[in-house]
Amino acid sequence: MKFIHTSDWHIGRQLHNQSLLDDQRFVLNQIVELAVLHDVDALIVAGDIYDRSIPPASAVALLDEVVNRVVNELKIPIIMIAGNHDGHERLGFASRQMIDSGLHIVGPLTKTVTSIELKGKQGSAMFYGLPYADPATVRHVLDCEVSTHEAAMDKLLEQVHEHDSNGLPKVVISHCFLDGGSESESERPLSIGGADKISPKLFTPFNYTALGHLHGPQYKGSDHVRYSGSMLKYSFSEQHQNKSVTLVELDSEGKAHFELLPLSAMRDVRIIEGKLAELLKIGKTDVNREDYLMVRLSDKTAILDAMGKLRSVYPNVLHLERTGLMSDNGKVELSRDHIKKGEMDMFSDFFTQVSGDAMTEAQQQAMTAAIDELHKLERTS
Amino acid sequence: MKFIHTSDWHIGRQLHNQSLLDDQRFVLNQIVELAVLHDVDALIVAGDIYDRSIPPASAVALLDEVVNRVVNELKIPIIMIAGNHDGHERLGFASRQMIDSGLHIVGPLTKTVTSIELKGKQGSAMFYGLPYADPATVRHVLDCEVSTHEAAMDKLLEQVHEHDSNGLPKVVISHCFLDGGSESESERPLSIGGADKISPKLFTPFNYTALGHLHGPQYKGSDHVRYSGSMLKYSFSEQHQNKSVTLVELDSEGKAHFELLPLSAMRDVRIIEGKLAELLKIGKTDVNREDYLMVRLSDKTAILDAMGKLRSVYPNVLHLERTGLMSDNGKVELSRDHIKKGEMDMFSDFFTQVSGDAMTEAQQQAMTAAIDELHKLERTS
Repeated sequence: MKFIHTSDWHIGRQLHNQSLLDDQRFVLNQIVELAVLHDVDALIVAGDIYDRSIPPASAVALLDEVVNRVVNELKIPIIMIAGNHDGHERLGFASRQMIDSGLHIVGPLTKTVTSIELKGKQGSAMFYGLPYADPATVRHVLDCEVSTHEAAMDKLLEQVHEHDSNGLPKVVISHCFLDGGSESESERPLSIGGADKISPKLFTPFNYTALGHLHGPQYKGSDHVRYSGSMLKYSFSEQHQNKSVTLVELDSEGKAHFELLPLSAMRDVRIIEGKLAELLKIGKTDVNREDYLMVRLSDKTAILDAMGKLRSVYPNVLHLERTGLMSDNGKVELSRDHIKKGEMDMFSDFFTQVSGDAMTEAQQQAMTAAIDELHKLERTS
Repeated sequence: MKFIHTSDWHIGRQLHNQSLLDDQRFVLNQIVELAVLHDVDALIVAGDIYDRSIPPASAVALLDEVVNRVVNELKIPIIMIAGNHDGHERLGFASRQMIDSGLHIVGPLTKTVTSIELKGKQGSAMFYGLPYADPATVRHVLDCEVSTHEAAMDKLLEQVHEHDSNGLPKVVISHCFLDGGSESESERPLSIGGADKISPKLFTPFNYTALGHLHGPQYKGSDHVRYSGSMLKYSFSEQHQNKSVTLVELDSEGKAHFELLPLSAMRDVRIIEGKLAELLKIGKTDVNREDYLMVRLSDKTAILDAMGKLRSVYPNVLHLERTGLMSDNGKVELSRDHIKKGEMDMFSDFFTQVSGDAMTEAQQQAMTAAIDELHKLERTS
């Protein structure tokens, strides 16, 4: 049994108000190609399919495309579970009507944990889809007393332990936060104060656990309890993460073997740093200048329309930080000297843009005098 | 081939801010029971499944319940098309994955009109699902030049004419506005100025046309071109409509025979009219006092908290009209006399509610004097 484990697609997500739909289509196509290349028996998506409970219609249409291609054309079954970002009812609509097609969507939590037997070209496996559920939901649906995420998961896993898989290896699919996991800035916390953390030990008894929620690929406790990570970088804090899907193969003893299959983005998400003039110069020959960028400008003077200037070279600058104007505590420092210097710089810049020429010395002196006059008036008023 | 034709479920709709979900569950259960009772081969829903493109999660969950019951438990196929209220992409998500289950959802318009062959216990039929599509959509998807709703429909129906149904009768499912159709207040106009109207003649060549959009059951042009009407009264303008589903049977020659199967609502939608005291008296013995009511009060005096008083007897009064205070032009008339009379009445009412006693004559005189004094001050200020 060989399958691809992926998660946190977040279809419909925006990065600093920029739609990522084309980027998502690009990388989803790669995942489909990897599934074909490795001749997998299934595609597992461990939650956060969409970025929010009411995704835009274009996101729904994109997922529909992917599902048609994988399930109907390639005949590769998909199991996907709802994550904390998904609207469980919406995602799970008519899921019973899709089962025969090979599309298994686990939406709202049900009293009996969903078990799905998938036949592989070499051996089969039993998959258990646990949608994201907070302790209150588990209490309500399973009519039990649990108050922490860990106790809730323990309760759900009881059923997986007890379920008769006919000797088949057991693969758990879950969307949760394992204790010790490395976070990024793009995950929405499951609860306040850390009560959402679950011991990885709960999952070690199973043959493999396909996790979603954390955006960096990692394993916890044991190497068969894994996060695949998201398919794209969804925050600048992830700039150094390598995104991938996890290829998992269960051998005849049910032991899991893995390989990380790298994904490449249509546009990378990265941070560049330096003086405006230098960055503009480098940008002209940067083949990746269409990447999504956070720019940290180290210039210590005011700059007119820095964003516009940057975007003329790097069209997808999404965020700008003026680190050159920041004090050590990270706040923008606006001393009187800074402001004064800034005003003159700003006007000089404006003058050049409008007239096409630099200011003459006489013009500069006149302007400096005018600014000083204004400051005097300001002080006396 | 025997099927039930229904439409305009509008699941998730509110009536004057009142959720109708329980009422909708009640009447949907009736539709399911009628399908069983008449041993039908299919259930056809001609659009406006939901009330809006983003229905509440509870509406999605209710439709999921209905679909599970009909398709999975009763094994009765369903064909539903998107109406002008539905979000086509959302409704149509994963529809290809549902086909084998017997659930056919026609979401966004596609280049090739969707044809679905259903086998009945006595004879089969070919169904053509045409989702609601305005001329611009038809132009775009079919890459043709049409500017009116009628020309767009004509273009779509070309395909139905040309399609080889292997000799099976052709049933068209459409959501549109036929010329001459009777409107209610609860349909959202398809366009401004009447360019949305389509000649019923376009549909007469087919064995049956199952229409949605108009909320009153009716046929146009020919009795086999029919609106089933909505399953519930969705506005007070529909108070005299009898809601039903249409039972259709195609005989061996492909001729359609019909029967309207009445639906009864959990709570009726109706208008009552009269003086407050009379209505409160009648209400005490009215077994249907939980109906959704519009109340038209003919009292000519001001009344303190009329809505509260009515709701103490009729809990579901949704709208109140003070017809007694209206002039012939339908506007509330507030002559100086009316207001004066109103103030005293209102205070007297308030006094009785607070003290439990009627005002004595002396108290009335004192109050009248006080009101007059206030009016004098008002005039001089």
